[in-house]
Amino acid sequence: MSRVLVTGASGFIGSRTLEPLRRAGFEMHSVGPIAPAEPTKHHTGDLFDRAQVRALLERIAPTHILHCAWEVTHGTFWHDPRNLDWVAATLDLARTAAARGVKRFVGLGTCAEYDWSDGGPAPRKEQDALAPRELYGVAKDCTQRLLTGFFAATDVSFAWARIFHLFGSGEQPARFVPALAIALKEGREAFCRHGQLTRDFIAIEDVGAALAAIVASQVSGPVNVASGSGMTLAELAGVIAGQLNGAPLLRVETNPTKDPLGMIADVARLRDEVGFVPEMDARERLARYVAAMVTSRS
Amino acid sequence: MSRVLVTGASGFIGSRTLEPLRRAGFEMHSVGPIAPAEPTKHHTGDLFDRAQVRALLERIAPTHILHCAWEVTHGTFWHDPRNLDWVAATLDLARTAAARGVKRFVGLGTCAEYDWSDGGPAPRKEQDALAPRELYGVAKDCTQRLLTGFFAATDVSFAWARIFHLFGSGEQPARFVPALAIALKEGREAFCRHGQLTRDFIAIEDVGAALAAIVASQVSGPVNVASGSGMTLAELAGVIAGQLNGAPLLRVETNPTKDPLGMIADVARLRDEVGFVPEMDARERLARYVAAMVTSRS
Repeated sequence: MSRVLVTGASGFIGSRTLEPLRRAGFEMHSVGPIAPAEPTKHHTGDLFDRAQVRALLERIAPTHILHCAWEVTHGTFWHDPRNLDWVAATLDLARTAAARGVKRFVGLGTCAEYDWSDGGPAPRKEQDALAPRELYGVAKDCTQRLLTGFFAATDVSFAWARIFHLFGSGEQPARFVPALAIALKEGREAFCRHGQLTRDFIAIEDVGAALAAIVASQVSGPVNVASGSGMTLAELAGVIAGQLNGAPLLRVETNPTKDPLGMIADVARLRDEVGFVPEMDARERLARYVAAMVTSRS
Repeated sequence: MSRVLVTGASGFIGSRTLEPLRRAGFEMHSVGPIAPAEPTKHHTGDLFDRAQVRALLERIAPTHILHCAWEVTHGTFWHDPRNLDWVAATLDLARTAAARGVKRFVGLGTCAEYDWSDGGPAPRKEQDALAPRELYGVAKDCTQRLLTGFFAATDVSFAWARIFHLFGSGEQPARFVPALAIALKEGREAFCRHGQLTRDFIAIEDVGAALAAIVASQVSGPVNVASGSGMTLAELAGVIAGQLNGAPLLRVETNPTKDPLGMIADVARLRDEVGFVPEMDARERLARYVAAMVTSRS
């Protein structure tokens, strides 16, 4: 019997991994301050408390860990000093996992780990150069490098999911898609400040399913979790406005920015090694998400 | 009044920083499981216990921290999983230091952080590429990158001393210099397996003085702590054998190795920005050290 422990299981990403993990046959356990809505055996606990982590892993004896918990407050997580606390807590979780016989550990990385200083014309492969700019990316990159070095000398198989740009229900309302949709829905002008930027968007349902597939696989090392194709922010905004008949209120600008023009993933590993392909195109997911958002808010 | 807290103050490196720090005018505090021989106000404490670290920094209110404590057991520290625990403990110490008004934090790095894959023909400058191979180097490099990112958003000035190859009294007997000296002294054959390798050796007294100078300075970022000139291991072994009249028992070999042929530091920052130059040539220090070792052991 495979028994997975999901951290951050009530969060935006973690919550979407639970159903696909259960469908994959895992006995479900979660840990965190809040129990997720989905059925799991939930353990209230604090990952910053080492003694609790030790006791928890001894009690649950998981075979797999999917570690989704991290500092993710929109707007501040890039520079939040709590990124350091999460590095420390993750290292401790990994040490305890290896000591407790865990067979597989999957952590969550980010597209911000890559070196985008060339402006991002080409999709990024997992082995491409890394050069995170903000503390969040440095923290994720360092965690990956430390866990890679550590787990290499253990029996634990380790994968690191580098997640690209997300959207979907449950996301923080200040994020790009809901902020734009809410403004248009309320009849206000909505601004897309950098319509020229191309990003690799993937729906949160697909991220959850991809992570479950990675946990169930034996693929090791970094794996991009993305759609593999780009959409400009102008196009994204256009899909949202189209759903809401909001085109007259949409202001697409192309202001200069230091952000890379493109950020797109090569998804060959996810597709060919993990065997995961999203069920639906990201544009279709986006349209349905915005439509549902309007219904639920009206 | 400047008040420094030294961690690992009873260790090989830390113990040599105490006298020069006191001479520089610091009020001296130390923390660790064992009190150092030199006079400091010692606080018995465990850096892996966050609550203790918080209480300690609140009580001492240091203006400066020199963080020497780490896992350094000869032969095993390169791959010891406790490297992860030291990363976590160091991040926690840094977080607490910033919250408690510490003005300056100096950590200890290593020449193993650099990318030596070219074989090391040129001395390494601090801004040169990094690519640590073993867990120890990864742990030190990641700590430096995380602390750089973290302290940049605080008022704490931060320096990172990348230490090259050490020798001196107090080192673990299995290390190169004492192992060779003891064998020759006891009339046994002594092997130098890789005489072709050039390393940048610096005496522990000079490292201690250099670290004290870095703590007292305002230099930020990485600083190489080394002599700036290379000595082959054959030459090093020759100096040792010369002191002990052991040349007939010395076997210098040049076996192939994956280790880089050269590992030498550019010490312009240490010399010009910190203003530190060793009092004595490394060969002279080595000769005196070996002579003293023989006297004390005979």
